[in-house]
Amino acid sequence: MPDDLQQLGEFGVIELFRQAARPSGSRVVAGIGDDCAVMRVSEAEYLLVTTDMLVERVHFLREDISPRQLGRKSLMVNLSDIAAMGGRPTAAFLGMGLTADLRGEYLTEFRDGLLECASDYKVDLLGGDTVAAQADLVFCLTVLGVTKPDQLVTRAGARPGDRIMLAGIVGDSAAGLHLLLNKSGQQLEHDYEKLIQAHLEPQAQVGLGHLLASKKLVSAMIDVSDGVLQDLAHICRASAVGADILADKLPLSEQACRLAKSVGHDALEWGLSGGEDFILMFCCSEDKEDQIRNCCLTELGTQVFTIGTITKDKKIRVNSKGVWLDRSVMGYDHFRGA
Amino acid sequence: MPDDLQQLGEFGVIELFRQAARPSGSRVVAGIGDDCAVMRVSEAEYLLVTTDMLVERVHFLREDISPRQLGRKSLMVNLSDIAAMGGRPTAAFLGMGLTADLRGEYLTEFRDGLLECASDYKVDLLGGDTVAAQADLVFCLTVLGVTKPDQLVTRAGARPGDRIMLAGIVGDSAAGLHLLLNKSGQQLEHDYEKLIQAHLEPQAQVGLGHLLASKKLVSAMIDVSDGVLQDLAHICRASAVGADILADKLPLSEQACRLAKSVGHDALEWGLSGGEDFILMFCCSEDKEDQIRNCCLTELGTQVFTIGTITKDKKIRVNSKGVWLDRSVMGYDHFRGA
Repeated sequence: MPDDLQQLGEFGVIELFRQAARPSGSRVVAGIGDDCAVMRVSEAEYLLVTTDMLVERVHFLREDISPRQLGRKSLMVNLSDIAAMGGRPTAAFLGMGLTADLRGEYLTEFRDGLLECASDYKVDLLGGDTVAAQADLVFCLTVLGVTKPDQLVTRAGARPGDRIMLAGIVGDSAAGLHLLLNKSGQQLEHDYEKLIQAHLEPQAQVGLGHLLASKKLVSAMIDVSDGVLQDLAHICRASAVGADILADKLPLSEQACRLAKSVGHDALEWGLSGGEDFILMFCCSEDKEDQIRNCCLTELGTQVFTIGTITKDKKIRVNSKGVWLDRSVMGYDHFRGA
Repeated sequence: MPDDLQQLGEFGVIELFRQAARPSGSRVVAGIGDDCAVMRVSEAEYLLVTTDMLVERVHFLREDISPRQLGRKSLMVNLSDIAAMGGRPTAAFLGMGLTADLRGEYLTEFRDGLLECASDYKVDLLGGDTVAAQADLVFCLTVLGVTKPDQLVTRAGARPGDRIMLAGIVGDSAAGLHLLLNKSGQQLEHDYEKLIQAHLEPQAQVGLGHLLASKKLVSAMIDVSDGVLQDLAHICRASAVGADILADKLPLSEQACRLAKSVGHDALEWGLSGGEDFILMFCCSEDKEDQIRNCCLTELGTQVFTIGTITKDKKIRVNSKGVWLDRSVMGYDHFRGA
């Protein structure tokens, strides 16, 4: 066994627990390894459960995100996991590690942001734990959701020939993070604020996920939290397939492309490997592609983009302008960095 | 509103969230304010949910508790909350903030302790989140459990005249913590190790809680995590009653009394205000007292102790040797200390 966390990596740690956990409960439908765990609660219903932890100086800097935004985002990242399974969120539980220097006002704003988001998505905050922390704020949200057994979408259903689609623009969050980490005091061009907002105020696509699941239009789904390539690798691993990505089809914003050019960065990199866009990525059979495109647009006003095809060969390949790029799957790993 | 966390206090923070949360879901039976939240999942079943966060240098010191013990305890404190509602635990979700210096071996031992405990209590580890942390290890466990609607026990059912009972010895955990915090290198008397073990390896009384609930013997229940007086105050507040405690009836161990004497401490204080014993405390009508005593002893081999009576007057009073002690309710507050 590797001796330290960096060798083991984030996904090595998860594997360490997954292999040993071996759930035996008769109600367990899915344990470790998807966006949510799934349990049977009645004939008509599955319970979805997801947990996300946010740690200060790892996930956020207190000076960059307002407490209200942080409250919203803490909940939103979990709602996005429920969305990725096609479910509807119902209840949230909040563990908080609070440092002694924290003002009551900060906490009230955090609460208001979180409860605003909860109200927007019809989620009840039903419990949690409040403890002291020595050095860094920690928030750990657990969200429950429900879905119908025949509407459950996992990472595991993608088949060769399936189209790979994205329900929105990717890379803006990574571009926004770049701006936050490279502040130099000068006034930002006005339309770069959209990039920062994408990073600080992501929107979980709960309605979209539920629409696709309830109409049984998709074979596999995930939310882009670690980056398109890494999240696609999760789908490929779970489905025992590969993927060909057409990089030129990746939906990037005009602002991200302009910023990338001005700072000597590659916008495609933000789009492929930047995380935290919380856009849904899903697979569907070829004959569903148009129906999905129309239905997302007419019912929710959301434009979706086809970015590639699922393959038999268990590799992910990226093609740009007719050339296959030689690159490994990259994305964020908590113990190895970006 | 108070301006800082110390003024606000742990329970002020919880109140800040509870007042604003206002759950509206039709399935919510109980939200913030008991050991678990309660949701209706079917006609025949309630879902229980509880979350506990453990932060390094606040809840534990890495040199004092082995990773295996820490793994067990992280889960155990949540199982104890399920026990306090009379439920049966089913699934656990683990959020981990891990520091870069952590060895793979430490993590494996932590996992083994947690999964051993899960197996002992027939709980499945079904998910979680693994992230980096800068300064301190953080573990946030969320546990789900189930109970039948007519067997649910909350903090809110105590009535004047009810007996107050404890399902085991209290104060050993606080005495053990005292030993850990005041190590001076000398060899401990052999039988003090039991005190340290009480602190590091608590046992959740899941079988006992379920027995009392399923036989409908108790009116209110809680686990002693913050200290007898403070946890009794939670019952009194929820039930709108008061309590008279007979301090001389408090079940203290011979070892804790001897240690207290040798270090000039009051063992009664450990018993009344020390936390983390994870012993169940419950109330019952007078006519159930003997039945409970017999049933706990014959079915589980557990001795229970009557320590006082619920009163109409919304105050908690402590009597020792016929004298009413003048003391306020104390216990652990995360932002005010012990």
